[in-house]
Amino acid sequence: MAQARRTVDVPSLVAGAREGRSRAVARLISLVEDGHAALPEVMAALAPHGGNTHVIGLTGSPGVGKSTTTAALIAAFRAQDKRVAVLAVDPSSPFSGGALLGDRIRMEQHATDPGVFIRSVASRGHLGGLSFATPQALRVLDAAGFDVVLLETVGVGQSEVEVAARAETTVVIVAPGMGDGVQAAKAGILEIGDVFVVNKADRDGADDTVRDLRHMIQLGNPERSVDWRTPVVRTVASRGDGIPDLVESLVAHRGWLTSSGALADRRRRRARAEIEAIALATLRRRLGDGGGLVTDAVASAVASGDTDVYAAAREVVDRLTGEPGRQ
Amino acid sequence: MAQARRTVDVPSLVAGAREGRSRAVARLISLVEDGHAALPEVMAALAPHGGNTHVIGLTGSPGVGKSTTTAALIAAFRAQDKRVAVLAVDPSSPFSGGALLGDRIRMEQHATDPGVFIRSVASRGHLGGLSFATPQALRVLDAAGFDVVLLETVGVGQSEVEVAARAETTVVIVAPGMGDGVQAAKAGILEIGDVFVVNKADRDGADDTVRDLRHMIQLGNPERSVDWRTPVVRTVASRGDGIPDLVESLVAHRGWLTSSGALADRRRRRARAEIEAIALATLRRRLGDGGGLVTDAVASAVASGDTDVYAAAREVVDRLTGEPGRQ
Repeated sequence: MAQARRTVDVPSLVAGAREGRSRAVARLISLVEDGHAALPEVMAALAPHGGNTHVIGLTGSPGVGKSTTTAALIAAFRAQDKRVAVLAVDPSSPFSGGALLGDRIRMEQHATDPGVFIRSVASRGHLGGLSFATPQALRVLDAAGFDVVLLETVGVGQSEVEVAARAETTVVIVAPGMGDGVQAAKAGILEIGDVFVVNKADRDGADDTVRDLRHMIQLGNPERSVDWRTPVVRTVASRGDGIPDLVESLVAHRGWLTSSGALADRRRRRARAEIEAIALATLRRRLGDGGGLVTDAVASAVASGDTDVYAAAREVVDRLTGEPGRQ
Repeated sequence: MAQARRTVDVPSLVAGAREGRSRAVARLISLVEDGHAALPEVMAALAPHGGNTHVIGLTGSPGVGKSTTTAALIAAFRAQDKRVAVLAVDPSSPFSGGALLGDRIRMEQHATDPGVFIRSVASRGHLGGLSFATPQALRVLDAAGFDVVLLETVGVGQSEVEVAARAETTVVIVAPGMGDGVQAAKAGILEIGDVFVVNKADRDGADDTVRDLRHMIQLGNPERSVDWRTPVVRTVASRGDGIPDLVESLVAHRGWLTSSGALADRRRRRARAEIEAIALATLRRRLGDGGGLVTDAVASAVASGDTDVYAAAREVVDRLTGEPGRQ
């Protein structure tokens, strides 16, 4: 990419990451965040490795106990001697940049465990943003041999759904008495949830929330339920209740993904989205600021009404592709 | 665009909109939301008209009184016999789709006034989303001869900043005692605010909030303050206090935009972004699903690690542009 051209010793960073060295992993993720010029070389070196990580997305509105659940899952997977990475993504930056930092601090109980890697990811304003950075950061963690990656996002809408779509198993967490949890499920997260969690299940209304979710799952997604019976797990993550059930559901989903062929489908779909994002970022650079194809003259003509925006866009595309007339 | 090819009588819709008929305006905005096939024809017909609307963006966290302020501004501009449109954009759809509907209902006091047009805009999942729909909806309202367009967004992060960037004058609303308002200002909205409003200024802490904002504006944006002295206006919008001051600041900003040449700059910048968005949507369609350039075979090769994502993207771009080697 176009940014800083500091010299980077890619082979030794990749070797370090594959040996599980945290600093090498962290450095590679920083290159991803920066959209660094060495990324094509990094990704080429990582490509043959990996494919074994289970990427688990955790999503839900603020306040449902997402980071408590994350911490409980870390502990549970560590008890099975699995290496665990947490990738915390905040698609709403710059507005709520503080939240994830707080979560990280709360997870510091794992900070000294070499089998746990915790990292938040921002897109530092470069083209393509998080749709670009998240899958590449996952690729780094996959090649680094983590058994499980917990992909945590802040609950703020469409961009969260996009991030969650990068996971193999997506966990949607709700809490009783938060009408918005169920509302959100209605509004669109139902389709992305492979496993539902009703956290704080010791609170009033937990039974209602579980029943509502089960009902909506039955109504909402007849197609998927043939293959995979979406579970609704009750937890009180703060004291570990229900976490073994949740882990069991996650492992079962991974097993189903593999045996049904759905895993290969999902990976192909993710790869396609990733290729598109990089191709579009490349094309966008050619269109864009400073000597790009959308010149000041073209922009001025549209601003003054001398031409319209579609005609201008068509001309730009034709010049880029050397192929006039197709629209 | 690729969607429904219902027959649309574009010339008569455009003529109707230019005569100020609400139903024609509403229909054109629906075409924009749908990414309708007739849009290039619509935009070509609209291009020569307009350029007179003052587009005012209103942004701020939930609870600061954004819709109350919007309603008060409608009343104030109507008292000056100006025609006013409200375009409410929810970039966080599908999660919080309910909020704007509630705001619209609250604004029903203006629903029977033919000089007021209120409309919420969603992007119905088509390529390009709101970065695509918002400017074109504004173009419809501009050509329809509205004197003022109030562009209202839900406060949920980066996408809101992008929508706000489509306005000529951006108003950032905060309320006393909501630390997040000031935090948000620190985090990134300081740069986009042309006018700041401390609403609910009869509450405790209003003086502190005003002082904090003034301080941050001075520190944060030395470049702009040379030309335009960003005002901080106190309002109690629910009873109309301070609204005349706010209107005066808005009109003053518009005057400054025109006399300084900044208006032409901003319009050119917006036109450029719009051309880019349409060109990218066109290119994306060619890359994408169903016979696109990112074939199943390419996606599978990346998913299996046989090739890497940059190499795949490079190949796709080369095939699209017929121009190998440039990256």
